[in-house]
Amino acid sequence: MAEVGHWVADALTATLPAQWTVPQVLKDAMDYSLQAGGKRLRPLLVIAACEALGGSREAALPVAAAIEMVHTYSLIHDDLPAMDNDDYRRGKLTNHKVYGEAAAILAGDALLTHAFYSVVQASRKFGVPAENVLSIVEDLAEMAGPRGMVGGQVADMEGEQGLTDLHQLQYIHLHKTGDLMIFSLLAGGRIAGADESQLEALRQFGTQIGLAFQIQDDILDLVGDESKLGKKTGSDIKQQKVTYPYFIGLEASREEVKRLTAAARSAVLEGGFQDHTRLLEIADYLMSRDH
Amino acid sequence: MAEVGHWVADALTATLPAQWTVPQVLKDAMDYSLQAGGKRLRPLLVIAACEALGGSREAALPVAAAIEMVHTYSLIHDDLPAMDNDDYRRGKLTNHKVYGEAAAILAGDALLTHAFYSVVQASRKFGVPAENVLSIVEDLAEMAGPRGMVGGQVADMEGEQGLTDLHQLQYIHLHKTGDLMIFSLLAGGRIAGADESQLEALRQFGTQIGLAFQIQDDILDLVGDESKLGKKTGSDIKQQKVTYPYFIGLEASREEVKRLTAAARSAVLEGGFQDHTRLLEIADYLMSRDH
Repeated sequence: MAEVGHWVADALTATLPAQWTVPQVLKDAMDYSLQAGGKRLRPLLVIAACEALGGSREAALPVAAAIEMVHTYSLIHDDLPAMDNDDYRRGKLTNHKVYGEAAAILAGDALLTHAFYSVVQASRKFGVPAENVLSIVEDLAEMAGPRGMVGGQVADMEGEQGLTDLHQLQYIHLHKTGDLMIFSLLAGGRIAGADESQLEALRQFGTQIGLAFQIQDDILDLVGDESKLGKKTGSDIKQQKVTYPYFIGLEASREEVKRLTAAARSAVLEGGFQDHTRLLEIADYLMSRDH
Repeated sequence: MAEVGHWVADALTATLPAQWTVPQVLKDAMDYSLQAGGKRLRPLLVIAACEALGGSREAALPVAAAIEMVHTYSLIHDDLPAMDNDDYRRGKLTNHKVYGEAAAILAGDALLTHAFYSVVQASRKFGVPAENVLSIVEDLAEMAGPRGMVGGQVADMEGEQGLTDLHQLQYIHLHKTGDLMIFSLLAGGRIAGADESQLEALRQFGTQIGLAFQIQDDILDLVGDESKLGKKTGSDIKQQKVTYPYFIGLEASREEVKRLTAAARSAVLEGGFQDHTRLLEIADYLMSRDH
C-alpha cells in the first residue's frame, strides 16, 4: 500500500498543466497540504476497485488524485479558525498557520475545483468513455457536495451544539466520511466499465467500511496510542463530541466494526469481481488499524 | 434581460433534487446568497451564446444556474472576515453575518461543488452529448480554478500588498472577472454544438467584454452614482487598490472600454452565428451601464 502512496504523491505533484500561469503562493499552498501525507486511503480505494474489475491503474490515477484533492481541501477548510481552529495536522502546521487564512480558503477552493479538472483527464489521457467520466463527475458533485460531505460537515457542526442522537450521528458519519469512500469505489468501478450489479456491490462495500472506519476512529480517540496516532487522544470528550462508544459503549462499538467489516467482505466476495484480494486487504486493514 | 433573471432565479430555487436529504441551514445559506439578486450577467451570457447558435434556452439553463452558483460562492468567500471583511453586499447582510463564518464557508463549498452537478444535468435532462458536457466541466474547472478565477483572486490579494503593475492588473482582471464570462460564452456555444471557429469568436468576445466590464467597474467606483450602484464609491482609493484609471487616467480608461467593446462587436459579427442581436445588446449594455 505504501507503493500506491508514492504513485499518488507523484500524480499530485504533476497535476497542474505546465503551460498554466498560476500564482506561486497558490501552487505552494495547494502543494503543502497535498504533500502533508496521510493514508491516501481514498486513492487506494479508486485503484483497488478499478483493478478488481480488470481496469488499468494508470487510467485510475487522475480520479485517485482528484479524490485526494477533495479530501485535502475539506481538511484545510475544516482546520480554519472559524471551523475547528486547529494549528496542527499530522504533526505539521495547518495550511492557514503557514499561508494565512485568506490563502488557505483559496487553496481549498482551488483544490476542490481542480479535482473536477483532474477527473476529466481520465477521458482525455486514458480514453475512458465520456459517458462514464460524466457519471464520475456527477457522483463526485453529489457525494462531496450539499447531499454528501458538506452536508455531513454542517450536521457535525450543528451536533457540536448538542443536538446529536444516534440517528444524527450515523448521518454525519455516512456523509462526512462515508460518501467520499463510496465515491472512490464507484469511480474505480466506472473507470473499469463496471455493470450495475458490480457498482451496487462496491456501494455496499463502501457504505460498510466507511461506517466501520469512522467507528474505529471514535474508538482510537478513546483508547488509542498517541504516539501511533500522531495526535492527542480524548479530543472527542474534551470537545464534548458524541461518538459511537458514547451511545452504545466501547465493546458494542468494537463488535459493530467487526460486523460491518464482515458484511463488507461478503459484498465484495459476492460482487463478481475478477480479483477481490486488494479490496479484502483494505477491509481487514481498516478494522485492525491502530492509527 | 429582466425576464432571463426570473428564469434563472426559478432554476436556482429548484436546483437541489427533491429526494436529497440536506441540512436545512445549509439549504437556507445557499439560497440566501443565490437569491440576493445581482445582474445575472453570466447566466445571460450562457443563454445568449446558446441562442445565437440556434440552441434551446431550456438546455442552457442547468449551465446558466451552475455559473451563477460559482459566481455566488466566490462572493460569499470573498466577503469573509479573512478576505474582504464585508458586512453588506447589494444592500443585504453578507452570508457570514447572517449564518456565521463556518456555515458561510461551507455554503460556498456546497455551491461550488453543486455547480458541477448542475452542469451534468444538461446531459441528463436535455440530452446534450456527453462529450460536449465533459468539455464544459473541463472549462469550468480550468476557468474557475487555480488557472482562472481563484488564481486571479490570489493575485488580487497579493496586489493589495502593493505589488501590482499594469501587467499584473490585467492578469487579475482577466482571471478574476473575465474567465467566468469567457466560460459562460463557451459553454453556451458548446450546448448548441458550436464548431471550433465559433468557439474562438465567443472566446474573443468574452475576453474583450470581460476586460471592458472590469475597467467600467473601476471607472464607476471613481465617478459613479452611489444611489444607482447601491454601494459607496471611492472604495478602491480607500483600500489603496490600483485600478485602470490609476494607471492610464480616466479618459484613456473610457476610450479603452469603447475600443474593447468595438472589438467584441466585431468578433461576434464575424463569428458566423445565426443571430447575434442579444450578444451585441449585452456588449452595448456593459459599456453604457451606470451600475
